Parts: sequence; structure tokens; C-alpha cells
Amino acid sequence: MNPSSTFQEIGAWLDQYESFALLSHVRPDGDAIGSQIALGFALEAAGKKVRLINEDGLPDNLAFMAGADRIETPPAEPLEVDVVIALDTATKPRLGAKVLDAVGHCERWINIDHHKSNPGYGNLNHIDDSSPATGQILYNLIQALKLPMPDETRDAIYVAVSTDTGSFQYPGTTAATYEMAADLTRKGLDVGKINSLTYDNHPMRRVELMRSLLNTLEVKADGRLAHWELTWETVERLDLKPEDSEGLIDIVRAIQGVIVAVFFEELHDGKIRVSMRSKDRRIDACKVCMEFGGGGHSLAAGIRMAGPLSDAKEKVLAAVERELATL
Amino acid sequence: MNPSSTFQEIGAWLDQYESFALLSHVRPDGDAIGSQIALGFALEAAGKKVRLINEDGLPDNLAFMAGADRIETPPAEPLEVDVVIALDTATKPRLGAKVLDAVGHCERWINIDHHKSNPGYGNLNHIDDSSPATGQILYNLIQALKLPMPDETRDAIYVAVSTDTGSFQYPGTTAATYEMAADLTRKGLDVGKINSLTYDNHPMRRVELMRSLLNTLEVKADGRLAHWELTWETVERLDLKPEDSEGLIDIVRAIQGVIVAVFFEELHDGKIRVSMRSKDRRIDACKVCMEFGGGGHSLAAGIRMAGPLSDAKEKVLAAVERELATL
Repeated sequence: MNPSSTFQEIGAWLDQYESFALLSHVRPDGDAIGSQIALGFALEAAGKKVRLINEDGLPDNLAFMAGADRIETPPAEPLEVDVVIALDTATKPRLGAKVLDAVGHCERWINIDHHKSNPGYGNLNHIDDSSPATGQILYNLIQALKLPMPDETRDAIYVAVSTDTGSFQYPGTTAATYEMAADLTRKGLDVGKINSLTYDNHPMRRVELMRSLLNTLEVKADGRLAHWELTWETVERLDLKPEDSEGLIDIVRAIQGVIVAVFFEELHDGKIRVSMRSKDRRIDACKVCMEFGGGGHSLAAGIRMAGPLSDAKEKVLAAVERELATL
Repeated sequence: MNPSSTFQEIGAWLDQYESFALLSHVRPDGDAIGSQIALGFALEAAGKKVRLINEDGLPDNLAFMAGADRIETPPAEPLEVDVVIALDTATKPRLGAKVLDAVGHCERWINIDHHKSNPGYGNLNHIDDSSPATGQILYNLIQALKLPMPDETRDAIYVAVSTDTGSFQYPGTTAATYEMAADLTRKGLDVGKINSLTYDNHPMRRVELMRSLLNTLEVKADGRLAHWELTWETVERLDLKPEDSEGLIDIVRAIQGVIVAVFFEELHDGKIRVSMRSKDRRIDACKVCMEFGGGGHSLAAGIRMAGPLSDAKEKVLAAVERELATL
């Protein structure tokens, strides 16, 4: 991995160059889209040309965000920009194939992320895994470089950090995170409104999904391992969108006595996506997921693996049970 | 209402007197118990004698709090203390009949609360409805009077404020709230742990209840009215406690397009408890509930009415539909 670049080194490029493509990962969440909007509007307010590009475009559940209409899917033709900025994206392939087709030829890459596993695929890399969200790194960057903070940036940073910390609850949340929220609120953020839009605005199909998942809930290993699943048939029947399942695994994670929660999801191509959460630092979800080619953080990790669902479940649950047996 | 007392006036009493009974309201929530523990341990660390008394004792879901074992139900005999301190309790009767039997004869009352409707029933009253939780007022009090802040106090303030703001989401949350959380974190609060204990610690039966409720979910009136129900048979089968259903109606309330959410609950005596939430100020949930002898606030109201469940549902849903038809 390249040594971490300072905000000043990144600032020199932001200053020197004129046009930027800001990217984030496939299946974007609040921190991905929030980071794109946050830095994009700050740069635009500083007089730069920006494009906000995501392989999967804007998910419905984030359409409420001011500036979200600027998120676009990758253009078919190669894009000419001075600098590409990858945000919140642990590996280059996670940017998506069409995105890489559009900007892969660009020569200058900045990579800003909070995922420990990020190998540093940019020319300038700022990887800070002490930050609970990429949005918080961007807040620090914007403060350090004295970049403008328009309302879109202010609100997007809040959404990015709020969604990635489970509303300021996860262990990565620090005093600096709360201080940042205080500062954004002093800058005019409408706390009640933005949280209502972020959290109290689910499509009916998400509630139907919750029902369907709960009906598959099973508990093993003396109540320490809980898992549920989503078949492709259910995805089609409920007409689900990728973002509908976001955060639902927390329902399982919240059960007393559960140490590891696993969500198995059948994809359209028959592959299985596995999301894993650990509540105990002694059980490293990332390590278990890496056995199957996945990765992530120690308390939240994932896999994309071969099906069928029953095989994936058997293998992954056995690996988790082996880990739990070491406690 | 008596004029609001300053922290200094309250501080003079805390300084002058030696023994205190700290109270909070019946069916206590996080802000009630949290406030009792927070101020109680601060006073004890300052060398005072304290009793923490609640009509209903300590609810299971707050038993994780450090210091919670100090919460006691009212003694049968009158209690001799120099000063009674009522916390987070809008009216004196909300302290509970047994509590008032035990301490009603005391001569010096301090009343600290954030409910606007509090009439100021103490000798010293500090009512601050700009604070999203009584815990935040106590934080300010402790800072202003330079009282000690033992770990129990630090953690209890956080739980009080976090639970009363829906994890820093509700409109009452201010920059000062986030700054307080930053300060508590700097003082050693374990953010991940305390939130995990507060929010990720539901008994399995609560998840089973969620499943059961979702399986009864129905939507009417073009998706504007959603309702679900809990039969007494299910209460018995899952061995549910009253606090298990707390907050679950928010799942229905959060559905896009839903204006009114209704929760029908069969009680042990065959009566039906109805909880109603409106998301639109034009639909007054209190008015609808008053038709059936209930009451509450315009956006959150309730009824206790005769059964059977099917009759109650038919009548109440018809009344809601009539209201919705006026939009």
C-alpha cells in the first residue's frame, strides 16, 4: 500500500486541477452517496467542474438528499476529467465495471476511504480506518483545506456519518463524530427533518421483506448464531430493490445472546451474497468471510460466493460455529 | 407556575441538606431511570445520602445500566429525607400513589423536568422544555455546580438522552446535545458498548412479537391506513412483557404513504388497547380516539375499549377511514 497522503497533498491536486469525477461503490449506501455529494458540492462551490458517477445510480431510499439528482450512471463513452476521486470504496473493482470502462484511462486517482482493507489503489491515498465513515474524513478534509461547505455538503456529511454509525451508536463513533454533528447542527442542519427523511420513509415492500425475513429466522449454537435468508423468488415476488434490505440485519444483531448474525441473499445469477455481523471483538467476521473470498471489517463483513443457497448456508454457518466454539 | 429556579438555588439545597429521595414517573423509560441514577450517583459521590425510588421499580430493559440495582420500589413506611427530587415527571400524580404515600409528607421538593406541561409542583422548579431530555438538564446542572461525575452518572446521562431523542434523531436534539455526547465520550464512555446494551439487546420474544405483528399487517384506504394486531393468545404463547412492544408501531408509521398507523392489542381481561399514530397534522388521532373514550396527543393517541377484537377493529378503522376521507 502506498503511504497515506496528507490532506495538504490531496488539497494541492484539488487546487491545481479543474475537472473531477467522484465515484463510490456499487450498491451505494448513505456513506457512498453522501460522500459523493459532500465533496462534489464543496468542490463545485470552489469553482471546479464535477461529475458524480455511480455504477448503480441513485438508490430510491437516498433520493431525498439535496443534490442527489446529480448522481448519474456511467456514460457509455470514456470520460475526460483531470482527476478521478474514489470514495468509500475498498477495492477498485467495487467501483463497478461500467465505471471503470468510463474512467479507467484517467491518469490521476485519489482514493479516500475508511476501510482498513483498502490496498491504496490511487496515486494519492488517504485511508483512515479510525473514522467511522468516509463522510467524517471528508468533513476533516474540508475543514483542513478550508473548502466551502454548502448546505448540500453539510447535510450529506450528516447522512453519510449517521447511516454508517447506525445513528451514532456503533463502536467507531468517537467524540470527534459527535463534535462534527454539533458543528453541522450549528451550521443550520435540520436534525429532525433529515433523520425523518433518512429513517422514517420506507416503501411498503421493505416491510414485506422484513416479514419474509423474520419468517426464515433461525437460531443456532445455543442462541449465539442467528441467520435469515432471502430467495431470488422473494426478491421477484416483492419487486425488491437492492437498498430495501439495508440495515435489516440489525434486527437479528439486536437479539439478546446473539454474537454473530448472518444474512444470506440469493442473487439473480444464482450467486449468494452473505452479510455477517459480529457483536464480539473476539469473533472476527472479516476473517471468517475471507475464508470464502470475502472481506470487510472485523464486526461487519461480507462474501459473494457460489450457490446454491443451501450449500452456502451450510459452509458459512459451519465456519461461524467453529469460531464460536473458540470462545 | 413558580418561576424557574436557577441551578445555583438548587445547588444551595443540594449543598445544605444531607438526605435525598430521587423519584421519576410510573412506567419509567430511559430518561426517567437514567435521570435518577445520574443525579443520585453524583450526589452520593459528593457525600450525600440518596434513595432512588420508582413506583414500578426497574424495568428489565434498563437492568443493564450501571447503578440500576439501586432503583427500589416505594417503602411501605413513610420515608424521612430532607429533600425530595422529582425528575422527568410532568405532574405529581405521575409519580405514583405508593411513592406519594411514602414521601408526600416531605416539606422540601425540587422538581426538574423538560415537559412543557409541568405546572411546577415543587418548592424549587427547573423546567426546561428546550432540553430534549431531563438527562441533558442534569448534565448542565452537574457541570454548573461542579458536582462529581462518576461513571454511573456519565453513562446514565447518555442513556437518558439517547433514548429520549431516538438516538440523537428527534427534532429536539440540538448542537448542545451532540456536544454533551462528545464530552461524555471524552470522559471515557464506551459508545459501542452502551448502545449495544441499550438497543441491541432485545429478548428473542420481542423479535418473535415483531414477526407475529408483521404477519397480521394490513393496509387500507389506498395505503394510507395500516394496522396490525396482537391477540392475548400470542401474548401468552410468547410470554410477552409490557415493554416488549415498545416502539414497534414505528415500523408501521415509517411506511411510505401511510398516514395513520393503528395497533390493536387484546388484554388479559378481553378489553382492547388501541395505539394510534398520525403522520399528518390534518388527521387528529386524539379526536378519533376520544370518540371511543380514549385520548392523547394529536399525532399519538390511544383507547382502552370493549372487545372482542374484531368489533373494536371494525369500529375504529371505520372512524379512521371517515377522517381520511376528509383529506
